[in-house]
Amino acid sequence: MKKMLLLSNSTMAGAPYLGWCKEKIVSFYKQNNISKVLFVPYAGVNLMSESLEKSYDAYIARVAGVFAEYGIEFTSVHTEADPVAAMQKAEAISVGGGNTFYLIYMLHKTGLMHAMREKVIAGTPFCGWSAGSNVACPGLFTTNDMPIVEPASFDCLGVLPFQINPHYLDANPEGHGGETRQQRIEEFLAVNRTTVVAGLREGTYFELDENGISLGGNKPMIVFRYGKPTEEFNPGQDINFLINA
Amino acid sequence: MKKMLLLSNSTMAGAPYLGWCKEKIVSFYKQNNISKVLFVPYAGVNLMSESLEKSYDAYIARVAGVFAEYGIEFTSVHTEADPVAAMQKAEAISVGGGNTFYLIYMLHKTGLMHAMREKVIAGTPFCGWSAGSNVACPGLFTTNDMPIVEPASFDCLGVLPFQINPHYLDANPEGHGGETRQQRIEEFLAVNRTTVVAGLREGTYFELDENGISLGGNKPMIVFRYGKPTEEFNPGQDINFLINA
Repeated sequence: MKKMLLLSNSTMAGAPYLGWCKEKIVSFYKQNNISKVLFVPYAGVNLMSESLEKSYDAYIARVAGVFAEYGIEFTSVHTEADPVAAMQKAEAISVGGGNTFYLIYMLHKTGLMHAMREKVIAGTPFCGWSAGSNVACPGLFTTNDMPIVEPASFDCLGVLPFQINPHYLDANPEGHGGETRQQRIEEFLAVNRTTVVAGLREGTYFELDENGISLGGNKPMIVFRYGKPTEEFNPGQDINFLINA
Repeated sequence: MKKMLLLSNSTMAGAPYLGWCKEKIVSFYKQNNISKVLFVPYAGVNLMSESLEKSYDAYIARVAGVFAEYGIEFTSVHTEADPVAAMQKAEAISVGGGNTFYLIYMLHKTGLMHAMREKVIAGTPFCGWSAGSNVACPGLFTTNDMPIVEPASFDCLGVLPFQINPHYLDANPEGHGGETRQQRIEEFLAVNRTTVVAGLREGTYFELDENGISLGGNKPMIVFRYGKPTEEFNPGQDINFLINA
């Protein structure tokens, strides 16, 4: 049985890092009796400009700092001599946000994509936010991130049958001729007509457990299907159609 | 000698299609004695939802309609029995905007990427806008578009040595926790430290001719280099460093 917590975003504008969701993350791990989490920092390419290593060091320090007071220890896979072996032994997994392309590039390059997939399917608790939520989907699609590197493949964990669009946003900056988020997702549907896309607004999350999938947070999600009007679902509504399609 | 016109965008908010730039496009082709242009519509995946064929039909109809009154005939490569042969014979080329991932996917799938590169290097006039400008760059990077398909490769024409970010935008929607455009480009630079990125604001364009490269339009461009402050350049300023690096 998969145990997953997939958050739209880490930080609400003007709020502290992981402020809106840290207690939810803590309760997710605690109800699964987890005290140690293996963190995947590869999306965080730009926390420090000196080197990627230093950027990952900064990322794990920031995340570990948030959860230390709750008695949950976060360590990063980038400091492991054998990342795949560390993943195979992990009690629980967390994948942080940042650039989805670099995250997927590194997960394929290190072999962690395959190792992580086996762990999630076996029931190891997994929490991701933003790019870390996209990883659960079939492929590297419907992210808002900029392509900064070419991954070996767009294949992701595929432990969900639908695509998430994190940070879903209704508005577009004023006076801008670019596509709205809805138009972008409709372009995806035009060439992927059987895939469902869930727009996950900031401050909301999906949770998967023995009861199926549920939506949490303070806003509805929006569901896109090819050739159909969009539909909104509120937290608490039955959304198991997303995984039973 | 390359002859290129690379526009940031097709349409300014509230203005007719190609309204701001159609006379510039006409003069670009006319000064090269062009009366017939081969159009590449593959970025336009969502002009009609029934099928991609119909979407491309709608796209070429719209574009051809804009230029018919100026005596320039646009025909689309998607209606050619042999697209590569049509490209090899083309007097001039135009690549329209839309989704960059689907455009690059189709250019590789059809063999047009290679054929078009040879034509551009041989001096066939090329005009692109938005996704059609990104195609001139080394790779499928620094686009704002959503990944909706996995192309065989991120390789693009590579007839320019730098990356363009079209629709460059300074602002972010209010109250949104996502990355700004500048942060996204800095993520690209963090993992591509020797590449220059030019942010091309809406209403501006690059032109390449026997005099080198110049910036046109009504706004400055912004140049990003790893580890350096951004720099702004106005239309008319010498920007040949972009191609002489």
